[in-house]
Amino acid sequence: MITADQLRTFTEQIFIAIGCSDTDARLAADVLVSADLRGVDSHGVARLPGYVRLYDAGRLNPKPHIKIVHETPSTAVVDGDRGLGLVVGPWAMQVAIEKARIAGTGWVAVRNSNHFGIAGYHALLATEYDMIGQAMTHAAPLVAPTFSLDKLLGTNPIAVAIPAATEPTFLADFASTAVAYGKLEILQRKGQDIPLGWAQNAEGQPTTDANAIRNGGALLPLGTDREHGSHKGYGLGAIVDIFSGVLSGANYGPWVPPFATAGFMQANEGVGEGTGHFFGPCALMPSDLPTSLKRIWIPGFSDSVRQKPLKANKS
Amino acid sequence: MITADQLRTFTEQIFIAIGCSDTDARLAADVLVSADLRGVDSHGVARLPGYVRLYDAGRLNPKPHIKIVHETPSTAVVDGDRGLGLVVGPWAMQVAIEKARIAGTGWVAVRNSNHFGIAGYHALLATEYDMIGQAMTHAAPLVAPTFSLDKLLGTNPIAVAIPAATEPTFLADFASTAVAYGKLEILQRKGQDIPLGWAQNAEGQPTTDANAIRNGGALLPLGTDREHGSHKGYGLGAIVDIFSGVLSGANYGPWVPPFATAGFMQANEGVGEGTGHFFGPCALMPSDLPTSLKRIWIPGFSDSVRQKPLKANKS
Repeated sequence: MITADQLRTFTEQIFIAIGCSDTDARLAADVLVSADLRGVDSHGVARLPGYVRLYDAGRLNPKPHIKIVHETPSTAVVDGDRGLGLVVGPWAMQVAIEKARIAGTGWVAVRNSNHFGIAGYHALLATEYDMIGQAMTHAAPLVAPTFSLDKLLGTNPIAVAIPAATEPTFLADFASTAVAYGKLEILQRKGQDIPLGWAQNAEGQPTTDANAIRNGGALLPLGTDREHGSHKGYGLGAIVDIFSGVLSGANYGPWVPPFATAGFMQANEGVGEGTGHFFGPCALMPSDLPTSLKRIWIPGFSDSVRQKPLKANKS
Repeated sequence: MITADQLRTFTEQIFIAIGCSDTDARLAADVLVSADLRGVDSHGVARLPGYVRLYDAGRLNPKPHIKIVHETPSTAVVDGDRGLGLVVGPWAMQVAIEKARIAGTGWVAVRNSNHFGIAGYHALLATEYDMIGQAMTHAAPLVAPTFSLDKLLGTNPIAVAIPAATEPTFLADFASTAVAYGKLEILQRKGQDIPLGWAQNAEGQPTTDANAIRNGGALLPLGTDREHGSHKGYGLGAIVDIFSGVLSGANYGPWVPPFATAGFMQANEGVGEGTGHFFGPCALMPSDLPTSLKRIWIPGFSDSVRQKPLKANKS
């Protein structure tokens, strides 16, 4: 039995070993352990070797000089200086929150970062200031748009966290694909088939082969096929890519650098700087509507859509 | 053969006949005709009788006093005074654009409105100012969340329009369901079956019956079922509902008033004021990144995701 605290300390020490400051190592460990505590093991400490491989490949700066390169009263572009996404993300979200405190909203695009863990962690940071939080990131191309054979987009997740007074915080945090790649990997490791509708093979045909993505196939957008709205999942993934990659000056589409997962390490030529994210917090708007917010209503919620806030888990 | 101009004039005259000002009638007609010009017939002039029925039912104020009821430098809540959504929408988007011109972004929630036509029309308004435009609206409950038998959410669409310099404007505009209700109605009128995955029957089972919704069934969220990510489409629909309904003080969830479609006219008790929308434009952020914006890249675009801007169609 390993406790969360033991896991946190172990993870911190790994990050310190590759050169991160104590503060950054503590924050990065918190992001990863929080994923495990929420039951999203695919994005938790299991990803730690990936960050170390990024460092070994010279693609990670453990002591980044993160900075704002452009700003208006409610927007900013942040350069992550090739730092850990786990550290660059909260830094940029803090900028966005500061802007929202003054202007009401903040939109911050980030370039020159890498994998930032679960999007929900970053979105929830805003709720600690009683703000709505939005976080998104693009990712390496594993997804074929509707009617495409080529992998041109990542699983590009979106998270939206909304404070709800006396009710638990609303959090939706999901990939814009039928399934996250981590879910497919689990069946891959078990040697099991995947359900039809998650992926296509190299010929663009529906497949149950969990290894299809490694063999020229692709993940499918949310909606699976045209008849069931895959062009909508594709559109959602494209929006995330443009917000995270094009607005920030990071790479985009098929040029988003791979996270250091075995089998996806090859470097891309690049059309921008590193990986990008996007953050959009908003101070709760209707100060004259407290009752509306107190009786916030979440329709027939399920665990996957509404969970306890991180703070409750951490205590 | 009826030209767009003839259709526009006819539609204007109907709106004038129910008491709208010339200016409002012209704008409302433009929103509806633009849907037909984009090939979205389900949201075009075919909806005109619905607005007249709303008026006949005393639910539409043809001469609304639309006003801002709360604001910060980059946010506002607008009360539509039961005016046409086709008019309230552009009014509120103009407020959002003015805020974005000064602060960088604008988030505006609207209550006391009704059906606003295609979301894409409103999102595109921001692109005329070289801004990103976002528009969303909730709608009457026709959708069952994942694992639910009850219809608790609307088809709740989202539109995002992004200017792209010399390239055509990017526009994604889609319901958060497997299919829009209008698509199902088309097969209903033809007496044809619907594909499996669009709807469930009164027992929550998959159905090909195009009349299922009228008989206790429901539309399904984007993703269709849990295994293929319907909890994500459900989460997306819930986000749209909270932004449009809860932040604004409008109704929400099962209390969103029905649009005047035959068979869905019964009035609800109500937990807020009318129907809500949400608008979120952003002035293009990276003024130091003009090349990035010029080489904006849209992955393997299809007609449903990337279309010519309205202005090109109107000329």
